[in-house]
Amino acid sequence: MEELFKELLTEQDTKMILLVIDGLGGLPDPSSGLTELETAETPNLDSLARTSTCGLSVPIGPGITPGSGPAHLSLFGYNPVRHIVGRGVLSALGVDFPLKENDVAARINFATVDNGIITDRRAGRIPDKYASKLCELLNKIEIPGVEVFVRHEKEHRGVVIFRGEGLSDRLEDMDPQKTGVPPLPAKAVVPEAQKTASIADEFVEAAAKILSKNHPAEYRANYVMLRGFASHPGLELFNDRYLLKAAAIAEYPMYRGLARLLGMEVLEKPDGLEDEVRQLKENYNNYDFFFFHVKKTDSTGEDGDFAAKVKAIEAVDKLVPAIVELKPDCLVITGDHSTPSILKSHSWHPVPYMLYSKYARHDKISGFSETECGRASLGRFPAIDNMVLMLAHALRLKKFGA
Amino acid sequence: MEELFKELLTEQDTKMILLVIDGLGGLPDPSSGLTELETAETPNLDSLARTSTCGLSVPIGPGITPGSGPAHLSLFGYNPVRHIVGRGVLSALGVDFPLKENDVAARINFATVDNGIITDRRAGRIPDKYASKLCELLNKIEIPGVEVFVRHEKEHRGVVIFRGEGLSDRLEDMDPQKTGVPPLPAKAVVPEAQKTASIADEFVEAAAKILSKNHPAEYRANYVMLRGFASHPGLELFNDRYLLKAAAIAEYPMYRGLARLLGMEVLEKPDGLEDEVRQLKENYNNYDFFFFHVKKTDSTGEDGDFAAKVKAIEAVDKLVPAIVELKPDCLVITGDHSTPSILKSHSWHPVPYMLYSKYARHDKISGFSETECGRASLGRFPAIDNMVLMLAHALRLKKFGA
Repeated sequence: MEELFKELLTEQDTKMILLVIDGLGGLPDPSSGLTELETAETPNLDSLARTSTCGLSVPIGPGITPGSGPAHLSLFGYNPVRHIVGRGVLSALGVDFPLKENDVAARINFATVDNGIITDRRAGRIPDKYASKLCELLNKIEIPGVEVFVRHEKEHRGVVIFRGEGLSDRLEDMDPQKTGVPPLPAKAVVPEAQKTASIADEFVEAAAKILSKNHPAEYRANYVMLRGFASHPGLELFNDRYLLKAAAIAEYPMYRGLARLLGMEVLEKPDGLEDEVRQLKENYNNYDFFFFHVKKTDSTGEDGDFAAKVKAIEAVDKLVPAIVELKPDCLVITGDHSTPSILKSHSWHPVPYMLYSKYARHDKISGFSETECGRASLGRFPAIDNMVLMLAHALRLKKFGA
Repeated sequence: MEELFKELLTEQDTKMILLVIDGLGGLPDPSSGLTELETAETPNLDSLARTSTCGLSVPIGPGITPGSGPAHLSLFGYNPVRHIVGRGVLSALGVDFPLKENDVAARINFATVDNGIITDRRAGRIPDKYASKLCELLNKIEIPGVEVFVRHEKEHRGVVIFRGEGLSDRLEDMDPQKTGVPPLPAKAVVPEAQKTASIADEFVEAAAKILSKNHPAEYRANYVMLRGFASHPGLELFNDRYLLKAAAIAEYPMYRGLARLLGMEVLEKPDGLEDEVRQLKENYNNYDFFFFHVKKTDSTGEDGDFAAKVKAIEAVDKLVPAIVELKPDCLVITGDHSTPSILKSHSWHPVPYMLYSKYARHDKISGFSETECGRASLGRFPAIDNMVLMLAHALRLKKFGA
């Protein structure tokens, strides 16, 4: 099927918007029996759903809880099991780092270590103003035979990129994911990664030396742990794959990075939801496809804050008229995965999905919700089908066969 | 996908119950338009379904009517087309026979043959007390170069196991499946099975000699027909595959055998439904996963007794509160396949399915039935997805990707 749709692609002067409400899907609050989306007042989403084709999208497969990377790849039509994009790469691209094909990137976490034992894996969630300065210091670390770049991401998180010959990303995480134990040394999974393991160890040692003297008094960021070692996956570019010109509107680094990895034009960093809509309007004539990302629904879900997630959904609902007003030929509103507040994490549950277009069937569901989408015509379908569905409704796929 | 979920498996202190109501799915009685499940008074199943995730499970594929073996393998998450478990093996394991890897087993049917022609394929459904004695006699048959074991199963059914070097299960059935014709000689499908074919013929000849003098006066069991030649399929063990400790509660030999084949602990043979529930309660703390099998719904369906199948379903409904009371982290109630009374046989129709869990979406269907499940969020889905869905809801699968 993947080869088939490529033969049918055609360029058209039609516009598509993919609005990803991160972590949209939820689970019922035990007291009300209603999910976050069902609890939220969403007159605009509900009204749009009534004249849309709806369903529940399955990000990876039944029962599989996806990370944000694979979940987005599915929505973009790339097989997320075949194309693994590591955490390090997503972090590097998220901070606008121009990653090269053979670079190896890893997520940095500032941590507190006492007498060789991790006592805080996030160094008190050291704020940006301090952590960014520490990253500037670490960026000066020199290791023979390899270039080292360190960039700050957010709070206690940063990213390190090693550039040189013969590097490999086949290393295990150096973060044991718990306190009360020592940090792990770098461990190569294959012999070819031995050199990179030594470099990683050397980097951590040098960093610890610098941090011991330079961390702020209130946040004892005296150590770094590296995880998610990854090199550039070399994915086919989005615009080439679908014969279009795509732009990404996203606030959070990782999603900006993912869009850049696929070669989308990433618009300037927006300042909140209204600003995202402003960018969409201002750039509407310059692109065919917009990836419009909303983060807050996911972070509130991960915090386990049901009420805040409800509010975040309601905030998105208010934007919908401005987006519909642009008259896109195809507008999809969905999430990349579910983040039920009662689980405080991503989950495997399929995600409410609606496709609005002049050429879309009307499923006539009563509103946009998990239950209603579960009764709609797309049923429970693989999220990876999203792109062909969007392209079809934007009349960008020719007829197959005579 | 199969490799993927294995990487994500994690052990948790959570409990799962898979309640298989054999042959659950039905077809409408032409006079009422209601299926057996829709006719039955099932207040407990209906109420549970309202707060469960529901659908129709497809045992093998669209239009394919499964035997009990493949239908159960699907529910247990094993590809039933790739892993064929022959009738002979199921019979052997069902009577607690410790089958070894190279044994070849075949189902024995006692039959009546007059002048070389089959006149009764079941020897009047010869009762257990007679048939078990005859099996003891046949167990003494000696064939050079091979060990022979004969065990009684139920009524006219038994099983023979041949143990030795160079045996093969690639033989056609010796039961022509009709009366008025002679029984068939053993026929090898491949040359390597020629030796086993000769052994089978020799066994049948020896058995006929013994039976001619020893069958009871009322039941002329003077012949045996062998079918379902099969050797041990060497399936990956259930507990290893899913990192859990599983127990099977089943009354009927074949299902006990299948569970044993997968390495489940098979609890003592229960005496009726209430006794099955008692076993579940008493052993609840000792296992993570319970396969709970109910047979009567299938046998009444096969008898074409609509009213009896309705009663059998109502009997299951009464057990539901006691099972729910145990607060399993994930409870699935479904069938292995459909057995519509008006067909008097297994059928290809998908099977009502509900998954009840603290972390399950509520599909808000009005009750547990074929029609309502057909409108629910799981839609019509492959039964082989059951295990990943159960594991996910029991929080036994980690996140995939960053």
